[in-house]
Amino acid sequence: MKVYIEPIGRLINEFSKLPGVGAKTAQRFAYKVINMSKEEALAFSEAIINVKNNVRYCKICGNFSENDVCDICKIRSADTICVVKEPKDVIAIEKLNEFNGVYHVLHGTISPLDGIGPNDINIKGLLERISKGGINEVIMATNPDVEGEATAMYISNLLKPLGIKVSRLAHGIPIGTDLEYADEVSLARAFIDRKTL
Amino acid sequence: MKVYIEPIGRLINEFSKLPGVGAKTAQRFAYKVINMSKEEALAFSEAIINVKNNVRYCKICGNFSENDVCDICKIRSADTICVVKEPKDVIAIEKLNEFNGVYHVLHGTISPLDGIGPNDINIKGLLERISKGGINEVIMATNPDVEGEATAMYISNLLKPLGIKVSRLAHGIPIGTDLEYADEVSLARAFIDRKTL
Repeated sequence: MKVYIEPIGRLINEFSKLPGVGAKTAQRFAYKVINMSKEEALAFSEAIINVKNNVRYCKICGNFSENDVCDICKIRSADTICVVKEPKDVIAIEKLNEFNGVYHVLHGTISPLDGIGPNDINIKGLLERISKGGINEVIMATNPDVEGEATAMYISNLLKPLGIKVSRLAHGIPIGTDLEYADEVSLARAFIDRKTL
Repeated sequence: MKVYIEPIGRLINEFSKLPGVGAKTAQRFAYKVINMSKEEALAFSEAIINVKNNVRYCKICGNFSENDVCDICKIRSADTICVVKEPKDVIAIEKLNEFNGVYHVLHGTISPLDGIGPNDINIKGLLERISKGGINEVIMATNPDVEGEATAMYISNLLKPLGIKVSRLAHGIPIGTDLEYADEVSLARAFIDRKTL
């Protein structure tokens, strides 16, 4: 005899598709839903479908948007473009309240080992935006890993001949970290990129 | 400006209602849903509503059921009743494939501090089942905490005058635990309940 009745087994199966959710956690989530009111469960269910129906990509920057053009592209001046790998990187930067320009989401980084070349990510869209003029600076905010660095270098090499200033997020030891605990790569980078006081 | 667009913010909010899910995890779950196909998201959404629409309590044992009477009550002989606190305890015992009798789900345990008395949990239903006859043994499988023990004692005192054998799950040191690491309460209990070889 199967252990779970069908509707519960099905819901546990759906929850276990979420990242980092195993059988035990999926079971806990399912019991939580069973104990929700019908209205709460309906709201949960609708939020899932709603996100699929109403979230698309901004046709300018490639970020998540409810409309053809996202709120950031609609409102902000576009003389500085911050280039990121994924939409969630936009969220991370927006939370800082430090950057007031616009974004460009590549939806990936160049990774020859995975068969992802420059044409497989949204570099063409970036070049089109820049060719329309008015851009002073492009900030490369891809991740500080091999693929992110390679992508930043590749795009930088494309843009420099066009007279665009290309910058990269600073690397170094994280604030609040003791020197002895900093990882070696970050510490080495902090030496190389040291600033004159 | 709000950081998330409305549909994503709403879904993150729904996910963060799940037990043990904070803002970061809820965000990861939401991105996973955004990256699902429409069919997958629909299946997920429907599984949530389906569980609310099709899961009820078995009118005999109080376990989760798709019908008025659950599959266990329908199929199994009912001379041994295993009494548990919650439906998820039934799952835990069913997974063992050791017990072949029927269950009774109390939906709580007696807890005077929380204002939960014997009339607030499903003891009446248990007495009704037993009054119909044919029950040889009642296994008290409530949790080994203060409330679980009190509930087991309370029900045991009700049933013994009726000539029903009442048993309790054995407590002691878990299999595979070294003596020096066993918690003191379990070790003390293992001494008290020691078996003659």
